[in-house]
Amino acid sequence: MWQPTPMTRRHLLGTLAVSAFAQDSSHPPLHINAARLRNHLEHLSTFGRPAGQGFEGGVSRIAYSDADIAGRAYVMSLMDAAGLKPRIDAAGNILGRRAGADSSLAPVLFGSHIDSVPKGGNFDGDLGSLAAIEVIETLNESHIATRHPLEVAIWSNEEGYAFNNGITGSRAAAGRLDPGELDAVWNGMKKSDAIRRIGGAPERIAEARRAPGSFVCYLELHIEQGGTLDRAGIPIGVVEGIVSIERYDVEVYGFANHAGTTPMPERQDALLAAAYLTIAVNEIVRAEPGRQVGTVGQLDVSPNAPNIVPGLVRLVIELRDLSAAKIDAIGERIRSRAREIATRTKTEIIFRPASHHQGAMATPEVQKSIEAACAVLGLRSQRLPSGAGHDAQAMALLGPMGMIFVPSVGGISHSPKELTRWEDCARGADVLCRTVLHWAA
Amino acid sequence: MWQPTPMTRRHLLGTLAVSAFAQDSSHPPLHINAARLRNHLEHLSTFGRPAGQGFEGGVSRIAYSDADIAGRAYVMSLMDAAGLKPRIDAAGNILGRRAGADSSLAPVLFGSHIDSVPKGGNFDGDLGSLAAIEVIETLNESHIATRHPLEVAIWSNEEGYAFNNGITGSRAAAGRLDPGELDAVWNGMKKSDAIRRIGGAPERIAEARRAPGSFVCYLELHIEQGGTLDRAGIPIGVVEGIVSIERYDVEVYGFANHAGTTPMPERQDALLAAAYLTIAVNEIVRAEPGRQVGTVGQLDVSPNAPNIVPGLVRLVIELRDLSAAKIDAIGERIRSRAREIATRTKTEIIFRPASHHQGAMATPEVQKSIEAACAVLGLRSQRLPSGAGHDAQAMALLGPMGMIFVPSVGGISHSPKELTRWEDCARGADVLCRTVLHWAA
Repeated sequence: MWQPTPMTRRHLLGTLAVSAFAQDSSHPPLHINAARLRNHLEHLSTFGRPAGQGFEGGVSRIAYSDADIAGRAYVMSLMDAAGLKPRIDAAGNILGRRAGADSSLAPVLFGSHIDSVPKGGNFDGDLGSLAAIEVIETLNESHIATRHPLEVAIWSNEEGYAFNNGITGSRAAAGRLDPGELDAVWNGMKKSDAIRRIGGAPERIAEARRAPGSFVCYLELHIEQGGTLDRAGIPIGVVEGIVSIERYDVEVYGFANHAGTTPMPERQDALLAAAYLTIAVNEIVRAEPGRQVGTVGQLDVSPNAPNIVPGLVRLVIELRDLSAAKIDAIGERIRSRAREIATRTKTEIIFRPASHHQGAMATPEVQKSIEAACAVLGLRSQRLPSGAGHDAQAMALLGPMGMIFVPSVGGISHSPKELTRWEDCARGADVLCRTVLHWAA
Repeated sequence: MWQPTPMTRRHLLGTLAVSAFAQDSSHPPLHINAARLRNHLEHLSTFGRPAGQGFEGGVSRIAYSDADIAGRAYVMSLMDAAGLKPRIDAAGNILGRRAGADSSLAPVLFGSHIDSVPKGGNFDGDLGSLAAIEVIETLNESHIATRHPLEVAIWSNEEGYAFNNGITGSRAAAGRLDPGELDAVWNGMKKSDAIRRIGGAPERIAEARRAPGSFVCYLELHIEQGGTLDRAGIPIGVVEGIVSIERYDVEVYGFANHAGTTPMPERQDALLAAAYLTIAVNEIVRAEPGRQVGTVGQLDVSPNAPNIVPGLVRLVIELRDLSAAKIDAIGERIRSRAREIATRTKTEIIFRPASHHQGAMATPEVQKSIEAACAVLGLRSQRLPSGAGHDAQAMALLGPMGMIFVPSVGGISHSPKELTRWEDCARGADVLCRTVLHWAA
């Protein structure tokens, strides 16, 4: 059970003078505790770690799973220790506040997520979440008060592996859940029950909404997940914007039949049609210049036996680009090609839009404040887009938004091999800390 | 508990005169009890039936599963009632004997299997198994004795969905298990434990072997599973031979990475490579004339998430033809194409021969005896090859072999829609009965 300590009470009463000190670039810049941040990241990596593996085994911490719940309990214990008095909102987000000198002011909001994809890495989401708590610890220890309150958010189900629909908690906070989304069923579980499982209250989901302008700005530190910074040898990325993401659930209906007795010309092979479609997605996406990507990452065959011509294939097509119009055009080309494939293979191919995540541009003033923080800390930075979706895009619907990227070694992510060097983790947290102070002063 | 009844004892003491009667084609031919056979088939279909479905829902009675064990118990109760005193051999096959007048003679062996593929039909294997028992019941009721003993065999794991390797029980009887086969693991279960689960004794597996020449001939009634007889409107097929079947386990190694941040040209997408390979199998098999077939029926993606470039795909390639040499040549062409695909997609593709089932030609004299039975019964027949593997091919290694096919409506098999008309089931059983009597006299 958490009790306010004398030190905690002291920093809650911190003076403007101390706050001004932190903003004075003529003084040596504040640094977070890199060893503690690493220790917390290593500890968090044990929740959802594959049996018999070490840190390098990565994590499978699917949202709403036992591993997710265990990891969330650990993060809440850290927030508790940092005096943040964590609470779980109706959407299952974990929120904690540090008071500001002026309680009438809106908070500076920052954080990330701790859920992962299956066989994911130890840094995606975890870094931004634990760095946010580390910023609070650092300010506490340095007895630095801020005018604005600070609020740390750990958003629920960012990855969207569960229910095939991500940035769930932050969308709930932005009032952007899809109609009927809470009734979605995945792995035999209803989304409302999943949210209840992590301590949320789906029947009061509207209470998770935040009003536009209810925060000064939203900041998120995250690993790049691509290879741009690593290749360039630059420690900090300043995100220009986040791509839009469109997903289609596709069903290919063939006819299941005996693989030994059904002559080749008479087959209606759903997997053969799905193979043509998978290649078509790749070809169409690559056919024009640009940074758009398209992926068939999930595909399930039924009945999935060596001696049965596949009767049904379910797959998911995902398209991403900064331009939603380009995504739409590519989607239309893929659907058109699918119709040709269906005719040629005597199958039926059905497309259902599964989810659409509108991208977002980062606020120019926030980008500049991140660059200013890098300058003070003596860190080179580079602007770049985010190919991955983030909770920040939901927050951008409510107020100013900015994201700080740190390098992913080899550009590897969503893999146990995902790696961000400890010194880069610390640099990113330093930039987050400085930028928070800029906006909270 | 079964006890011999007066009637059972009587037919065991049947005279040669009665036996000769059955062989005299000037008398009206013997008919099995079609209503009883149908009743038994409908009852067997309840084991492994999908929840909430009727007969038309088909069965999932995977070898060694609870449904298989329940179905086997039912079949043994029928054998018991027919006086066959069923026993389970070391390989898990169910065997039952009816004595002949001359106990020094070898038996006529006949039967089939009752395991199914997932979401399979109600006739594949079941018909031949229950028709074999029906033949015994019919002879019992007609007080017909035979010189040779009769032996009914219900072979274990014919389909090979479990452990990706079929006609297991009959191969054990032919002494043709693969080296180390009992140590194979599937779904976390060791094959030896699976065999023990259905009452076998894997530590004494050699006891399941039969000596060459230890039966007069092996007969099997089976649904065609193809559409040849149905299209031609011919009720009985006389099998010329059974195709050879080659299976390869294929692993495609790419690199799992974030689907939003990994540019298209830098991907090592295992599913994209697998799609090219799936199409290559189809193209290469269809490139030359003949009845050969090639199938990718099983394919699993890892990690199988919409926002991860697939890192690993496991799939099974299956090739079938009466000519083993042709299969080998096609397999070599596919492997060669796979090497090109691996280079182009920056993946690694590994082929492992998973199983090889040598086909078998049916014994000419047995084919002729089936045709003679059809003539007596007034049924048209046609010779044709079997595109599916059968336990008969293992028995062909030990002695004369023949198979009787009945039409599959629409050529549909390995599907809940698999259907053989009740009158065709009865006709097939009549032909089996007459052919058994021919060889057992």
